[in-house]
Amino acid sequence: MWKPDRSSDQTLYHQIADEMERRISYGEFPPGSQLPSERKLAEQLGVNRSTVIQAYEELRALGIIESRTGSGTRVSKFKWGATPKHTPNWHRYVEGGHFLPNLPYLRRIREVLQKDPTLIDFASGELNSELSPNEEISTLMKEKKFKEYLGYDNPQGYMPLREELVSYLSRYRNIQTTDSSILITSGSQQSLYLITQCLLAPGDAVAIEDPSYIYSLPMFQSAGLRLFRLPVDEKGIRPEDIRALYKKNRIKMIFVNPNFQNPTGTLLDQERRMELLGIATELGLPIVEDDPFSLTAYDGVPPMPLKSYDQLGSVLYIGSFSKIAASGLRVGWMVAPHSVVERLADARQQMDFGLSVVPQRIAAHFLASDYFQPHLEQLRMRLQYKRDSLIDALQKELPGQVTFTIPQGGLHLWCKVIPQVNDNKLFEEAIRRGVVIAPGSVYGSDSGYVRFTFARTKEEEIAPGIAKFAEALRTVLS
Amino acid sequence: MWKPDRSSDQTLYHQIADEMERRISYGEFPPGSQLPSERKLAEQLGVNRSTVIQAYEELRALGIIESRTGSGTRVSKFKWGATPKHTPNWHRYVEGGHFLPNLPYLRRIREVLQKDPTLIDFASGELNSELSPNEEISTLMKEKKFKEYLGYDNPQGYMPLREELVSYLSRYRNIQTTDSSILITSGSQQSLYLITQCLLAPGDAVAIEDPSYIYSLPMFQSAGLRLFRLPVDEKGIRPEDIRALYKKNRIKMIFVNPNFQNPTGTLLDQERRMELLGIATELGLPIVEDDPFSLTAYDGVPPMPLKSYDQLGSVLYIGSFSKIAASGLRVGWMVAPHSVVERLADARQQMDFGLSVVPQRIAAHFLASDYFQPHLEQLRMRLQYKRDSLIDALQKELPGQVTFTIPQGGLHLWCKVIPQVNDNKLFEEAIRRGVVIAPGSVYGSDSGYVRFTFARTKEEEIAPGIAKFAEALRTVLS
Repeated sequence: MWKPDRSSDQTLYHQIADEMERRISYGEFPPGSQLPSERKLAEQLGVNRSTVIQAYEELRALGIIESRTGSGTRVSKFKWGATPKHTPNWHRYVEGGHFLPNLPYLRRIREVLQKDPTLIDFASGELNSELSPNEEISTLMKEKKFKEYLGYDNPQGYMPLREELVSYLSRYRNIQTTDSSILITSGSQQSLYLITQCLLAPGDAVAIEDPSYIYSLPMFQSAGLRLFRLPVDEKGIRPEDIRALYKKNRIKMIFVNPNFQNPTGTLLDQERRMELLGIATELGLPIVEDDPFSLTAYDGVPPMPLKSYDQLGSVLYIGSFSKIAASGLRVGWMVAPHSVVERLADARQQMDFGLSVVPQRIAAHFLASDYFQPHLEQLRMRLQYKRDSLIDALQKELPGQVTFTIPQGGLHLWCKVIPQVNDNKLFEEAIRRGVVIAPGSVYGSDSGYVRFTFARTKEEEIAPGIAKFAEALRTVLS
Repeated sequence: MWKPDRSSDQTLYHQIADEMERRISYGEFPPGSQLPSERKLAEQLGVNRSTVIQAYEELRALGIIESRTGSGTRVSKFKWGATPKHTPNWHRYVEGGHFLPNLPYLRRIREVLQKDPTLIDFASGELNSELSPNEEISTLMKEKKFKEYLGYDNPQGYMPLREELVSYLSRYRNIQTTDSSILITSGSQQSLYLITQCLLAPGDAVAIEDPSYIYSLPMFQSAGLRLFRLPVDEKGIRPEDIRALYKKNRIKMIFVNPNFQNPTGTLLDQERRMELLGIATELGLPIVEDDPFSLTAYDGVPPMPLKSYDQLGSVLYIGSFSKIAASGLRVGWMVAPHSVVERLADARQQMDFGLSVVPQRIAAHFLASDYFQPHLEQLRMRLQYKRDSLIDALQKELPGQVTFTIPQGGLHLWCKVIPQVNDNKLFEEAIRRGVVIAPGSVYGSDSGYVRFTFARTKEEEIAPGIAKFAEALRTVLS
């Protein structure tokens, strides 16, 4: 990414004016399009706002850009000679599609973290690099000579990985399946996208947990689905609620995350699991079971998935490497009846023509290697340690001001703040103090909840991060 | 994939019955679901149909499956005990989504090639492994130690690859751009998917070439777009046609593949290029320029893309490694105004949470390496050689029965058959004789055209393949 060169003879504002002129001439900002605000560009480039103001004045003087009060700075249309030449109205195209943008909170989180990598990150739901098997993967890449044909892959995914997953699922998840029932996806997100796009139609009603990370995915709204809530208590959802939703709203599918649920960390109670399966089969309703966290169980005894009790093929099971190895591999899987797998694989061909064989091959080698089991043990130990650090810090910094249930697995701690605070104020004040959190409303909760992810945060930053958060909370409450 | 063991003491039909019982119990075929037909299963397993009939009889005797005339063989519901237990009606879910399945021809091509790898393949639009830089990529994987953090990637794609693409695009395509105007995609298919999903809305009209590979993509119909045709002659589309389509149908976007067009191999005439850009800017219409083949120009002088003349930011430029290096890498790119790139990157987060860094990193190393330029030279030479072999074979086997324009680049030869034949009959007869072709109707043409891809076919199979095709044609015409 371009930054001005502070050691150059040329002034900063000249450098910025030249760079922006270059970008405009390259089509990054076509005639008539909006330029970044002075404040935003100054942030991006790490200069004072006044420097950007000077640069923009320079470009205005050259007739390259123009500003109007209330509508910001735009690339001049004039420069490009006589009408009738028009650049497409990109604004209209960008607004015109039916795909909803990401939630403002999530965009803001991504932006502030990109801008300032020194922020303490309790928001990103992923593992820190110290928890990922980077060294092991690097070694496998080096040792296992790549000999595969680099043509288009099988639409269901790379066969050796599907075969490894058959034994992985049997050994670690008590799921008996075959390679033809497995679809490799580029992570749980793609599994959910395929389900919402290909098995459901706009207007269909579905049941999801409340709170749920699914509220953070405009994907469901983009697909035109109507969402109905299954409140989560300390034992998970109450399966009886499904019957009522079915009667009233004809729900067509149930989405659950039963093992160390995101964001609450809750484990669905064993009795309720059987009840949930019973009601689903009674009503002929499919269950989508998202199971990314179970192998992180701190006691080393992962809870068994619903799928392992699923005798009737009612459960679409979703797994992934993202939360137990590395999100950047982009390798996930789905176990489903063959007709479903076939349909989704076919539709995926239209979206991206299937996955790259390269990360799939690494995933297969990693599963088959002697690295996998020790990696899991390390991961559990370290996550538990980080969870404990977070709890210690919260108890020290905010005694009586936060309540939570201690999670027994997963990457998150779900925290209620007392007394209730305004989500947005707390979020912004925390950023000002150098800490990024995920406000509860992202997950469909009322104001006053926070999801702390301790997996992404560096160990030594947890205590200072919570101290800063405590200051932010005090400021908002004062 | 499971196959019966012919050296086992157990009979083949017993082995098959056991395997199918296992798959049913694992949920691959839930109660009530359809099993593969006897013919299909026999094909898959490489056994006689009578063996499968015996295996199914065995399972029927055990009450595990049931057959009814006209509705094939299904998994019995009875076995699973008392009602009221229901498996979801997967058939309804699979049919219920709004995503259209792939064309029957393309599914059939994929199926027959998967089943019988000895078929001579003139249908798959990709490079053979001898044309792909497998050795070079394998070496780069081994030599460049993987040190990257395996977390979620930047939504626009891996920065070092975007930086390499800035110089690649300048050097090879005469396109001046910046890393912030580039979106890395998992190939041209995903670029097109993002454009159709996010910049267009159902009911929008778009103009596409006729014939065009876009007709082979139900993607456009799934997005609810109305397609209008721009006939391709020996100089490409006639830009004046756009004005008429705009007036009558208010088209909102133009899709073109100007360099060695798929399927016709046509090069859009230089004068028409300027005229196309002029009309597009006059009407304020965006052009989507798909440019996968230009670096294959056999004379070593790739035609310049429309994007290189695009002063107003009207062109969304799509490129990819698939046709010049390896389709299995799944790495492509788009160059577009920043607001478009930002929107598509944001939407892609909802679909798959971005790309794996692993293939992107290989692509970046490959572009930066000393392997890239010699690879391109080799590729051109070999493609030209294969094109010549194909032309020789066609002239020898089918004198006066086929006409075509000799392509100067790309992977395909577009061939008219004289007299006109029935597409489907020719297609099936060719398969029976051991050759797979892509019928012209896949690309929106009338019957009687064939696309021969010579890039995928093994060199030594081209002449025998065309001999078999000639036999098939004679059979259909007789």
